[in-house]
Amino acid sequence: MELWESGERHISWAARSMPVLTALGGRFAAERPLDGLRVAACLHVTAETAVLMGALKAGGAEIALAASNPLSTQDDVAEALRGYGMAVHARAGVDRATYYRHIHQALDVRPDLVLDDGCDLVNILHTERTDLLDGVSGGCEETTTGIIRLRQMAAEGALRFPVVAVNDTRTKRMFDNRYGTGQSTFDGIMRATNTMLAGRTVVVAGFGYCGRGVAERARGLGARVIVTEIDAVKALDATLQGYEVRTMERAAPVGDLFITVTGNRDVITAEHAAAMKDGAILANAGHFDVEIDVRALDELAGEVRRGVRPNTDEYVLPDGRSLLLLAEGRVVNLTAAEGHPAAVMDMSFSAQALAVAWLARERTGLEPGVYDVPEEIDQEVAGLKLAAAGIGIDALTGDQEAYLRSWRSGS
Amino acid sequence: MELWESGERHISWAARSMPVLTALGGRFAAERPLDGLRVAACLHVTAETAVLMGALKAGGAEIALAASNPLSTQDDVAEALRGYGMAVHARAGVDRATYYRHIHQALDVRPDLVLDDGCDLVNILHTERTDLLDGVSGGCEETTTGIIRLRQMAAEGALRFPVVAVNDTRTKRMFDNRYGTGQSTFDGIMRATNTMLAGRTVVVAGFGYCGRGVAERARGLGARVIVTEIDAVKALDATLQGYEVRTMERAAPVGDLFITVTGNRDVITAEHAAAMKDGAILANAGHFDVEIDVRALDELAGEVRRGVRPNTDEYVLPDGRSLLLLAEGRVVNLTAAEGHPAAVMDMSFSAQALAVAWLARERTGLEPGVYDVPEEIDQEVAGLKLAAAGIGIDALTGDQEAYLRSWRSGS
Amino acid sequence: MELWESGERHISWAARSMPVLTALGGRFAAERPLDGLRVAACLHVTAETAVLMGALKAGGAEIALAASNPLSTQDDVAEALRGYGMAVHARAGVDRATYYRHIHQALDVRPDLVLDDGCDLVNILHTERTDLLDGVSGGCEETTTGIIRLRQMAAEGALRFPVVAVNDTRTKRMFDNRYGTGQSTFDGIMRATNTMLAGRTVVVAGFGYCGRGVAERARGLGARVIVTEIDAVKALDATLQGYEVRTMERAAPVGDLFITVTGNRDVITAEHAAAMKDGAILANAGHFDVEIDVRALDELAGEVRRGVRPNTDEYVLPDGRSLLLLAEGRVVNLTAAEGHPAAVMDMSFSAQALAVAWLARERTGLEPGVYDVPEEIDQEVAGLKLAAAGIGIDALTGDQEAYLRSWRSGS
Amino acid sequence: MELWESGERHISWAARSMPVLTALGGRFAAERPLDGLRVAACLHVTAETAVLMGALKAGGAEIALAASNPLSTQDDVAEALRGYGMAVHARAGVDRATYYRHIHQALDVRPDLVLDDGCDLVNILHTERTDLLDGVSGGCEETTTGIIRLRQMAAEGALRFPVVAVNDTRTKRMFDNRYGTGQSTFDGIMRATNTMLAGRTVVVAGFGYCGRGVAERARGLGARVIVTEIDAVKALDATLQGYEVRTMERAAPVGDLFITVTGNRDVITAEHAAAMKDGAILANAGHFDVEIDVRALDELAGEVRRGVRPNTDEYVLPDGRSLLLLAEGRVVNLTAAEGHPAAVMDMSFSAQALAVAWLARERTGLEPGVYDVPEEIDQEVAGLKLAAAGIGIDALTGDQEAYLRSWRSGS
Repeated sequence: MELWESGERHISWAARSMPVLTALGGRFAAERPLDGLRVAACLHVTAETAVLMGALKAGGAEIALAASNPLSTQDDVAEALRGYGMAVHARAGVDRATYYRHIHQALDVRPDLVLDDGCDLVNILHTERTDLLDGVSGGCEETTTGIIRLRQMAAEGALRFPVVAVNDTRTKRMFDNRYGTGQSTFDGIMRATNTMLAGRTVVVAGFGYCGRGVAERARGLGARVIVTEIDAVKALDATLQGYEVRTMERAAPVGDLFITVTGNRDVITAEHAAAMKDGAILANAGHFDVEIDVRALDELAGEVRRGVRPNTDEYVLPDGRSLLLLAEGRVVNLTAAEGHPAAVMDMSFSAQALAVAWLARERTGLEPGVYDVPEEIDQEVAGLKLAAAGIGIDALTGDQEAYLRSWRSGS
Repeated sequence: MELWESGERHISWAARSMPVLTALGGRFAAERPLDGLRVAACLHVTAETAVLMGALKAGGAEIALAASNPLSTQDDVAEALRGYGMAVHARAGVDRATYYRHIHQALDVRPDLVLDDGCDLVNILHTERTDLLDGVSGGCEETTTGIIRLRQMAAEGALRFPVVAVNDTRTKRMFDNRYGTGQSTFDGIMRATNTMLAGRTVVVAGFGYCGRGVAERARGLGARVIVTEIDAVKALDATLQGYEVRTMERAAPVGDLFITVTGNRDVITAEHAAAMKDGAILANAGHFDVEIDVRALDELAGEVRRGVRPNTDEYVLPDGRSLLLLAEGRVVNLTAAEGHPAAVMDMSFSAQALAVAWLARERTGLEPGVYDVPEEIDQEVAGLKLAAAGIGIDALTGDQEAYLRSWRSGS
Repeated sequence: MELWESGERHISWAARSMPVLTALGGRFAAERPLDGLRVAACLHVTAETAVLMGALKAGGAEIALAASNPLSTQDDVAEALRGYGMAVHARAGVDRATYYRHIHQALDVRPDLVLDDGCDLVNILHTERTDLLDGVSGGCEETTTGIIRLRQMAAEGALRFPVVAVNDTRTKRMFDNRYGTGQSTFDGIMRATNTMLAGRTVVVAGFGYCGRGVAERARGLGARVIVTEIDAVKALDATLQGYEVRTMERAAPVGDLFITVTGNRDVITAEHAAAMKDGAILANAGHFDVEIDVRALDELAGEVRRGVRPNTDEYVLPDGRSLLLLAEGRVVNLTAAEGHPAAVMDMSFSAQALAVAWLARERTGLEPGVYDVPEEIDQEVAGLKLAAAGIGIDALTGDQEAYLRSWRSGS
Repeated sequence: MELWESGERHISWAARSMPVLTALGGRFAAERPLDGLRVAACLHVTAETAVLMGALKAGGAEIALAASNPLSTQDDVAEALRGYGMAVHARAGVDRATYYRHIHQALDVRPDLVLDDGCDLVNILHTERTDLLDGVSGGCEETTTGIIRLRQMAAEGALRFPVVAVNDTRTKRMFDNRYGTGQSTFDGIMRATNTMLAGRTVVVAGFGYCGRGVAERARGLGARVIVTEIDAVKALDATLQGYEVRTMERAAPVGDLFITVTGNRDVITAEHAAAMKDGAILANAGHFDVEIDVRALDELAGEVRRGVRPNTDEYVLPDGRSLLLLAEGRVVNLTAAEGHPAAVMDMSFSAQALAVAWLARERTGLEPGVYDVPEEIDQEVAGLKLAAAGIGIDALTGDQEAYLRSWRSGS
């Protein structure tokens, strides 16, 4: 099979799992919302990104694509995209200099709109390619880190065009945080340990969106769930959902499985670990590997047996008890399982496609700054997702709209 | 038993179910946050309100209380409060003139702070007792209707002091909307019909906070749940929680029990009703009795048999099928059951007590306007509720606080 | 309204809630399985029983009915049945002598088949009316107590005809024990206390069918559930379903609500009660009022305040804590709510109707003795229930039947 | 690492996951219930079996072990067992003749008791080694197939000693069928497809113990669950648990994921498959690969793309829709995941150890025949499992035992 052929296959497989973005592509082909616009994108060059690029091209855009990370570039996908008439500046494993040259080459298209994943392209625009800035009327940024950089630029008055923060929409968060993380965390834990969850006591540290999802799945798999929190309102909500709430100190001696998902550090310390039952399993589902104090565990343990199961290390305490640490404390759903299902990417890339169309429509009226994804885009993504699943919902009648309006106005 | 004695008993019984407010009363007695302040309140004169008044008095306030509705006044409670040294201007069933005179009498205390339930007292202050306005440094309002009036006053520049909108805190909403409504709706339906819910198909119209609570309880009672919505994001969330989502038109022929909780009108129309199964039950858990189009039902039915069960009317359709309408389409949990458990009042009155203390502390620095309940008050109420249930939660260490701060600042 | 008219209304209302028995009546009318048979019945003379009698009469039977308890007789229903041409010997509130005379009068029909509820009619047949015994070819008994008496008669060789123990079928048990008791227990508790269940700790003593149902509903209402058991296998099953299992001694200090459903005595003792939290609620959902040691509670308490809420007594302990005992420790779903929904009666009376038809068909080949309800009757009742709800299920193909047979035979 | 050392490690790791059997080993060491008895066993020579052998040896038995399947023999474990002083006749991958010679060598120990897995050893005893039969006073058999053979021997009067059918105890069935299959089925499906389950429609064919477990986990993972059944009582139970019940014909067009677990063939046919949605996933969790008619799928599909994901084949229908068949229709939890967690083996091997002790105690009084595992052994295994998890349960008092006895006797 030739390279482009393999790429086409991968793209077509990804498209199967992205019904919303595929439907958007169809609509864009009919409505041509991007006709005559040039788009420069700096994204992971993968099959899912290819489906996004296809939708934008169908909408009339001229595409120039560079890789946001040389390690994730799929060369066959890049080749297939070139076959579709896009300018793709990416090759797996290139060095730093080439990486930056690729971004410059993508910018050579003299973009009207830009898509970024980590703010590198936008940064180059504002420093080395300022000549192009006047032509750029808007952009999208995918990552939290990128958004933080952009907000600082905006605060300093340096940002020169409006950017939509597409990393965080309600629909994506549903798929990603609550339902995605919940499932994939246990997918990872089961692959790593093959342990039975029914009848076990699972301690979930943190009851934010992710923690809620993890707790629901733990219960759904037959576990008794204990929640720890530092926020009283969230803790109260957990009790009202039937969970037992304890301090970690009081949870440590009774848990069979501990899952941290707090966004904070040192949630499980050496003191907690020392109080745990023989055979307790420790997993982290938070973003960074700081939630379980692994260094302290290393010091606590007399011996560490690496790899007793895939992604499982056994920490033997001096008194003979063992604790099992999964994925070295790194995020277990990405490390021991496969991370986000394509359904998550479908949500966020669809929001991105709609944000691009929105920018194309509204750009003349927007001040430079960082914008949230408009609520109507969330509604549209959710509506398309429901339609793809064959689910219809009600529409307001005129009388109902009038009733709601009168009520909101307090008359 | 003498009147005041009966009142004391009722207050003491209410206090048993209000552990948070009772705990606050204890703390106020120690800290005296209202020392030297005069408080005029216009509230339902009930045992629960008496517990609130007790807490404020324990905090050092001088209390003058009028009734916000003469129909709800409990004379024995009023008498007991007088025995505790409060000025209570209220008697059950008084006429309109007396009602207003009572409010004036309460205002005669020359209040520093005011508590209102429907904005009548605040309104009189701004129209007939403007001489007192300079002395008033803040207030609380309990109801949604009152808040709407206050926001209009604020918008027109007429409001002369800061008012906290205590009707809606996260903790109260938890207890009230999601968990309270969910339970009491089924309490009402079971009392009215004694019907078995396991194995039945329950159609929940609306998936806001209340609808979510109703759907959870329906599922928890063994029903198969179908959700209808007009908002795509909420509909998608319902599917992700495992509910089937349909239009009402497609849900009508399969439901055994329909519960509306949308905040909108005509959610169940004659067309829907005509498509329903023989024996289908219709209940409304929304605030107003407009969600089921009862007038259309009346026209549709050949015969209406009132009171076949408590709060149950049988609508016999021309073809012999019957529909059972509960509580004449009025809110079923208040009509056929007892409405909010005391636990809900405990949350909102505790927020009110803390809001008064907050106003006492912050009033000199606050502009006139309508204020949300500060997040720290919600945290405090939730924390006290947890403590009353004997539940401890974790506290952030210094390192953890520093970590969160560093992350939020993007450094 | 005349007496018979009121009776007809009650019967027709009951029939609405008994779709299975109503469908059976239709089938019996077509197939006439009881043509020419005389049936003497001693049952509670209620609207539900009337629907059963109607089905038997539709099947061709001549009916003579006496009351199994004069207190439960509904005179209007009796009158309506007489209007349908049945011999009904029953009147509300008659004395003991009349009660027995009524049974004799029913037996005067010289029955081919008998229906009994407590074994009084069968007992009289075997002692005072032995002349009729040769004519009787079979019977049904409704109650557990009656079955115990019949088994003893059978063991002593005294029973002269086959009797089907209709009190206990799988379908009835589903509706009654697991799902019926589960729901009605909380119906009773909510009516008695109006307490919020979400976020509370509910201790369920006993994890048999009923206990399982109670635990499921407690969880479904948002409670944290703790189970106590004396059987290790059931206790293990509870843990595998995610419940926490404790001894009552360790559960007593943490529970907010205790529900006994064990079939045993002294499950909650004074020692347990003394360890409970202030405000703990005690309810019994087991058959007899022996599960909570009420006498010991009486001794423990310094003061008992009767009726602080409907069906709620407050036991004030010497140290000031209060416990709330519901329904004086009697079965809470019958005392504080309305007991079995009609759907339960529909199951057991349908089994009874089918058992009568089965006896009519098989009686010549059956030895005297106590018979379980044949599995095929259970299947039929379940099938009719599904059909009444509009639910279709699959049927085995010929190949599938052959496959199952070959597998069972081990070839 | 030497062979025996690696074996010891594997055994010690297995022992960690088998707390019940480990506890039994400790008790046997104290009580020596097998003192002086010779045990010949024909079992899979794995680390888990080694833990069982260790317990029997601790109880005083002299052990001779042959492999029940040369493919599953772990040579390092065999070597470690030899080091513990057991006679182990097993080597990975030996030919048929050697396999049988090993069984003969194990029998050379002249066993008092035998353990079998498939009935080969018992068969040889009754045909080629009849001289040893007089010495054998009992045995255990692990497999369903073995039990069928033994029952036929017993029916023909050929079986010469009592055999306990240890393959099926309530505790093992709990761990295995309901909770084990439920979890591992989704473990397999997630590994194969990485598909998100929340919000999907899962069709579970069959509502026996396994089907119930699969349905519970599907719901627990956020899916909407539809059940198909051929048994009306099970179907009714499914509806009472809140599941929608449909025929497969009506379920086929709406399901996203189909899981067969019926024990029957052709549950999903070409007609069903032809009606399914594009992208539907088909998995079998039943024992044999006959539940999905794969041959018919092959004929239906225009093209089959093997291995589009691990254990996933894509069947492209002539109209372009695709179905995804997992594990070629073979049991998905064993094929795509790892099958039973060690916790299941812990239950069945513990029952086996206790059955051996029971035989040692009771053997003189038992007739030849096939025996179910005595209820007290189930209680003991469950009790040990609870104890290993640190869970205490109540014990009956004398009064309570007397009360239950009096009730059961009907007095």
